Amino acid sequence: MNENLEKIFEFIVELDKLKTVFRQTYILGEDRPENDAEHSWHMAMMVPLLSRYSNQKIDEGKTIKICLAHDLVEIYAGDTYCYDPKAAADKEEREKAAAEKLFSKLDEPLKSEIYSLWTEFEEGKTPEAKFAAALDRIQPLLLNMERNGRSWIQNGVHFSQAEKRISKIKDGSDVLFDVAYKKIEEAKNKGWFKTD
Amino acid sequence: MNENLEKIFEFIVELDKLKTVFRQTYILGEDRPENDAEHSWHMAMMVPLLSRYSNQKIDEGKTIKICLAHDLVEIYAGDTYCYDPKAAADKEEREKAAAEKLFSKLDEPLKSEIYSLWTEFEEGKTPEAKFAAALDRIQPLLLNMERNGRSWIQNGVHFSQAEKRISKIKDGSDVLFDVAYKKIEEAKNKGWFKTD
Repeated sequence: MNENLEKIFEFIVELDKLKTVFRQTYILGEDRPENDAEHSWHMAMMVPLLSRYSNQKIDEGKTIKICLAHDLVEIYAGDTYCYDPKAAADKEEREKAAAEKLFSKLDEPLKSEIYSLWTEFEEGKTPEAKFAAALDRIQPLLLNMERNGRSWIQNGVHFSQAEKRISKIKDGSDVLFDVAYKKIEEAKNKGWFKTD
Repeated sequence: MNENLEKIFEFIVELDKLKTVFRQTYILGEDRPENDAEHSWHMAMMVPLLSRYSNQKIDEGKTIKICLAHDLVEIYAGDTYCYDPKAAADKEEREKAAAEKLFSKLDEPLKSEIYSLWTEFEEGKTPEAKFAAALDRIQPLLLNMERNGRSWIQNGVHFSQAEKRISKIKDGSDVLFDVAYKKIEEAKNKGWFKTD
């Protein structure tokens, strides 16, 4: 068998591990947290549904690929909860090492192609990366609203933390930021956040 | 709040249900079947990794969108196991009704845009739909090989059924078909299929 292809298949099999990296957000149909593969699918699916609300014109295909790949390094680095300052401290270092380990399983030019999707998301400079970052914040927000703020309550999240977290949506979409802000205000009024 | 956007958000929340539609294939890191959202993510992720092996030139972004959306109707129609002739009998009818119910939750032009991804996959005529259909067969094959043929054994699948199932890969990619055929022959030699 084609040696290159066998290596790609091994990488595809390795990616299966993303299905067992769990997040703090809960899915709606079962009493269990969401995993990264589900989250990435949901985010990617949101691109064609919401791309018209991007501040800048985006390449949908590229944005979707960024969404699909944005959490891959968590296969080795684990999920870092966005409201956990301790875990955030060494997040960058852990994820860079994980990226090198994971993407090095591919030969060039594929290695650079997939690696760069993750790097682009992390750097957050392109319109596509900014829009993907907005979706990365809106997707769990929508689930959390349906779940009566469960993961915010469970983790004792303060309103000011959520406010800071969603502020990045504005870089990708003013329209989506406004809606997200209204939603966290609604959540605050329902008592789902700790008061500051 | 923007009325159109609220409707899109409701649709996004509805899509969460795909995370609780289970398939016959098992994931590798836990003792549980794979769900449709995970499968769709995995398939979509395979597009940039394998597109060079497509028989015809494909638009990657479009192919990925087809992969993301190809199982959405199973939210209402459920997963139809590919080796279950009884369930296959009314599959088309069930899925068409489900598609109408699901995609009608969106306004135009989004409704047609998302609906057409599913229709294109079902019709299987374009290079993108053919390649997506190939990936839809290779993804579970790779997991099944790693799982020592578990879902084939559990469901008493005959070699001739698997042979027929993977024959469609050839329409999307001769290279991937050859590799897939070698894999089911290997599985046959290991005794994971019923003999005909």
